Amino acid sequence: MKFCRKSGYANRGMGLESDINLTNEYYINEKKAYIYKKPTPIKIAKVDYSRSKIIEAFFDTQSTLDYNGIYRGKYIEFDAKETNNKTSFPLANIHNHQIEHIKNILSQSGVVFLIVRFNLIDKNYLLMGKDLIDFIESNDRKSIPIDYFEDKAYNLEVKYIPRLDYLKVLEKEVLYEG
Amino acid sequence: MKFCRKSGYANRGMGLESDINLTNEYYINEKKAYIYKKPTPIKIAKVDYSRSKIIEAFFDTQSTLDYNGIYRGKYIEFDAKETNNKTSFPLANIHNHQIEHIKNILSQSGVVFLIVRFNLIDKNYLLMGKDLIDFIESNDRKSIPIDYFEDKAYNLEVKYIPRLDYLKVLEKEVLYEG
Repeated sequence: MKFCRKSGYANRGMGLESDINLTNEYYINEKKAYIYKKPTPIKIAKVDYSRSKIIEAFFDTQSTLDYNGIYRGKYIEFDAKETNNKTSFPLANIHNHQIEHIKNILSQSGVVFLIVRFNLIDKNYLLMGKDLIDFIESNDRKSIPIDYFEDKAYNLEVKYIPRLDYLKVLEKEVLYEG
Repeated sequence: MKFCRKSGYANRGMGLESDINLTNEYYINEKKAYIYKKPTPIKIAKVDYSRSKIIEAFFDTQSTLDYNGIYRGKYIEFDAKETNNKTSFPLANIHNHQIEHIKNILSQSGVVFLIVRFNLIDKNYLLMGKDLIDFIESNDRKSIPIDYFEDKAYNLEVKYIPRLDYLKVLEKEVLYEG
């Protein structure tokens, strides 16, 4: 397994991330989908070429989203975010590069979304990329109110197996559209 | 741009890689596809947490392929390989993990292939993942003879713009299949 920033670096987002990793394993075992976490982006500063060893490097900001893969031939990419806010999701959680990346995926008819967990109120939402971009482009707000999630996003219940069955939503709402 | 192993590490494959990067840029600019190179996998050994700095790390073997992205909603993944052999392509160029990865992509109806350049005879082939797996599973040979490429793979001509128009092949041969 590749080094993964959130678990190895600062232990941020371990709960949601672990739920998603378990879900993805389940999908792979059941041959439902093939979706996996990308390696952490690293900026390499110094290499000792005589030993093929990196002696100085830094954690880089992700300009794409953390997970991608295939579901029934379709390109899927998403990110998982947690917040301790109770009433809104701060957009500072998403970098500008990631917004551009989401737009590029949408322009090629890829399936792109966020899974957002509101830790303190025990809620998980799947917000489609299009609805995220719509919000950003029609608002000056620095956070997305939970009402917007209630209105536009899909509720994901945490279950035993699979933990967060996000493909169920995609099956219903995305794949039969086109 | 992320650090890229082949150009920064040992300068292997620069010609083909640069042709593919130019082609992908062209596709992005023309909004034909959104395909990009993955970051180099790195195995981190020691981190100085007080400065968020990696002080020991190694180049890891790639267990996936180098490029992935979207074309008309479809999941695309491929790798670019060069050989100085004139009569065959050594399978040692592809790791076992990568073979498994290719099978997983195929099982989810993803589009997966290799672009193989025979440097000394100026030939570029696009070999579909299915034909690669077929060869491996029906042969004990440690390399794929060029006749197999002539028979099963698609010839790619190097042109001015785009350098290696691999989507043209996919358009004709893959996307209208299903």
